[in-house]
Amino acid sequence: MSVTAPKGFLAAGVACGIKPSGDPDLALVATADRQPVAAAGVFTSNRATAAPVLVSADHLGATGGRAAAVVLNSGNANACTGSAGRADAERTCALVGEHLGTDAEHVLVCSTGLIGIPLPMDAVEADVPKLAAALGPDGAAAAEAIRTTDTVRKEALVDGGPFTVGGMAKGAAMLAPSMATMLAVLTTDAVAEPDVLAEILRAGVADSFNALLVDGATSTNDTVLLLANGASGHHDDVALAEVVAAACTDLARQMGRDAEGATKLVEVRVTGAASDEDARRAARAVAGSMLCKCSWYGCDPYWGRIVSELGSSGAAFDPDTVSVAYGDVTVCRNGVPAAHDTSALERTMAARDLLVAADLGLGPGRATVLTCDLTHGYVDENKGTS
Amino acid sequence: MSVTAPKGFLAAGVACGIKPSGDPDLALVATADRQPVAAAGVFTSNRATAAPVLVSADHLGATGGRAAAVVLNSGNANACTGSAGRADAERTCALVGEHLGTDAEHVLVCSTGLIGIPLPMDAVEADVPKLAAALGPDGAAAAEAIRTTDTVRKEALVDGGPFTVGGMAKGAAMLAPSMATMLAVLTTDAVAEPDVLAEILRAGVADSFNALLVDGATSTNDTVLLLANGASGHHDDVALAEVVAAACTDLARQMGRDAEGATKLVEVRVTGAASDEDARRAARAVAGSMLCKCSWYGCDPYWGRIVSELGSSGAAFDPDTVSVAYGDVTVCRNGVPAAHDTSALERTMAARDLLVAADLGLGPGRATVLTCDLTHGYVDENKGTS
Repeated sequence: MSVTAPKGFLAAGVACGIKPSGDPDLALVATADRQPVAAAGVFTSNRATAAPVLVSADHLGATGGRAAAVVLNSGNANACTGSAGRADAERTCALVGEHLGTDAEHVLVCSTGLIGIPLPMDAVEADVPKLAAALGPDGAAAAEAIRTTDTVRKEALVDGGPFTVGGMAKGAAMLAPSMATMLAVLTTDAVAEPDVLAEILRAGVADSFNALLVDGATSTNDTVLLLANGASGHHDDVALAEVVAAACTDLARQMGRDAEGATKLVEVRVTGAASDEDARRAARAVAGSMLCKCSWYGCDPYWGRIVSELGSSGAAFDPDTVSVAYGDVTVCRNGVPAAHDTSALERTMAARDLLVAADLGLGPGRATVLTCDLTHGYVDENKGTS
Repeated sequence: MSVTAPKGFLAAGVACGIKPSGDPDLALVATADRQPVAAAGVFTSNRATAAPVLVSADHLGATGGRAAAVVLNSGNANACTGSAGRADAERTCALVGEHLGTDAEHVLVCSTGLIGIPLPMDAVEADVPKLAAALGPDGAAAAEAIRTTDTVRKEALVDGGPFTVGGMAKGAAMLAPSMATMLAVLTTDAVAEPDVLAEILRAGVADSFNALLVDGATSTNDTVLLLANGASGHHDDVALAEVVAAACTDLARQMGRDAEGATKLVEVRVTGAASDEDARRAARAVAGSMLCKCSWYGCDPYWGRIVSELGSSGAAFDPDTVSVAYGDVTVCRNGVPAAHDTSALERTMAARDLLVAADLGLGPGRATVLTCDLTHGYVDENKGTS
């Protein structure tokens, strides 16, 4: 049910003292035989790139896409930490490499947490031996140790028949297309070449994590990694791409549902756009709208805000051909109010999962963006003194 | 102190029953002699354009930029109302024209309020005579009658020496660059040709209303109108442009301060960008960030979110040259934490006006965007069933 589900992967999670709370904060995923395997990564597009992102991308470049382990910490992003931060990330990889008997370059590193604070390397140094010794077949401790404001751990397992894809992720805010404050590690026992693996991961991320928009923020540390050890002996790139995409989607939905303060998972589906790109733009505008997000929190069916966001999204738009529905209740048809069953609408608005469907009536373009509502809980979670 | 401050303008405001609350909801601004004067308008860029916007733009086009009156209603946006809505907006102008003895085309019309509901024309028809009869030298009733969720009326008066510019505005949410759910009517007794007046207004709006970002929403009804009757006999386009810009800035600041739920007016100033356009992009990213806005509400000086927004804004960005200050307390210098006076910082964060200054350290580009914090009050204001 996690990164250890595919044959040949182990994981561990410990509390090393990065988090003042004493909660688990250091995780490790490794190949069981400590040998490097095909690996791929997709990283944040934020130009304020955190040290671990730079180091992991470098390592993947230097090894031609091979890795034996991923070390992850929560509680500290190691971002805005300058060259010292980069040295800390390198040192973390070296420590893990020493204890696993592999090169530092075959170790990838991810961090999530507060920005602008040096990683407490004494704590990391002291506990890497304990972490390496704890490696085992249960992935739960690792998934626990990467949580920040996540209220639950996020794991996925997709059965591809002769092979499987497992995964774990964290992410509760700063979630937006082009990657969010989110980390995900996926593993598979399928056979794949590094280049193909990179393509497969990119495609899987595009329709899952990159179609998730919680608060429009793209973090400094976003990372999705995929390790393929070939232990199943099965090689089918097309099937692997499908299964990886399914695992990414599963984890992305878990993130949307557990977003800070969220009470609803909202799918914004735009059809009838002039192009897919227009549909994406329109869906993102609605999904990112503070006004719309507040209205979903209050189960308010007032659709004027949705039409207003569609009209100002930059997508081609005709006020006389737009229709809007909540679930299957159409509330606006061809730009004017549509008669509808108000009790059915009330039930639709009150559910925990809400579909907002807009048809622009212009062409074949379509896109879906996953988001959540904006609540007092989000404000509370983010106003507090860090 | 309002639209009636310049010589030769009158105004009125009444409650005609559009708002269920019985609060004032119909306003009129007119030239004292009912004769058309030079007029200009800037309208929403939203493609879901409301009927009154279409009608006002048409009238200005047909008359070559001349108008004798502006009629405004709150409580109903007359948007997403199809051709019937357009006929209602035309009929409103015709009614006002009849009672003032001027052509319908010399009347401009603005609406603000709920989308997708027909304007109650019976109420408007019944009360236009009362509205016309109430025209007088006090602008307060008109400024009251255009409020929606505004907690205070918004008026401005800027003295240009031999001439003055007066204004009134409303706007409390859906506030973003490229115009917000905001209406503003400005008047002046300066002399100006319609073409020049249009240029002057466009420039004034660019640095004021269009540099205001509350929630990123661009409404269906945004309108800023400027009427110049030449009653002062003074003709100085350069001076007029300055005074109009000052009046626009005054009204925009009043809107930012009265934004829904806002407890703080926040000025985001970006300097050192590669270009002004980059600076605008970076400033808007910070000003529009739900995470940053929540942190200002909580007086939280954690600057990691600001650097993250700058880095993901699309502006040229170097993590090693960025600096961030709250007021004059620098908290991040060249991408890493800067030692600072924490009690001075605490005082700065607690104030009602906050300056967030980011220096990208790359070039001469600069921009300022005005915004506010994101609070429980905003969520409450916008979650409620319409």
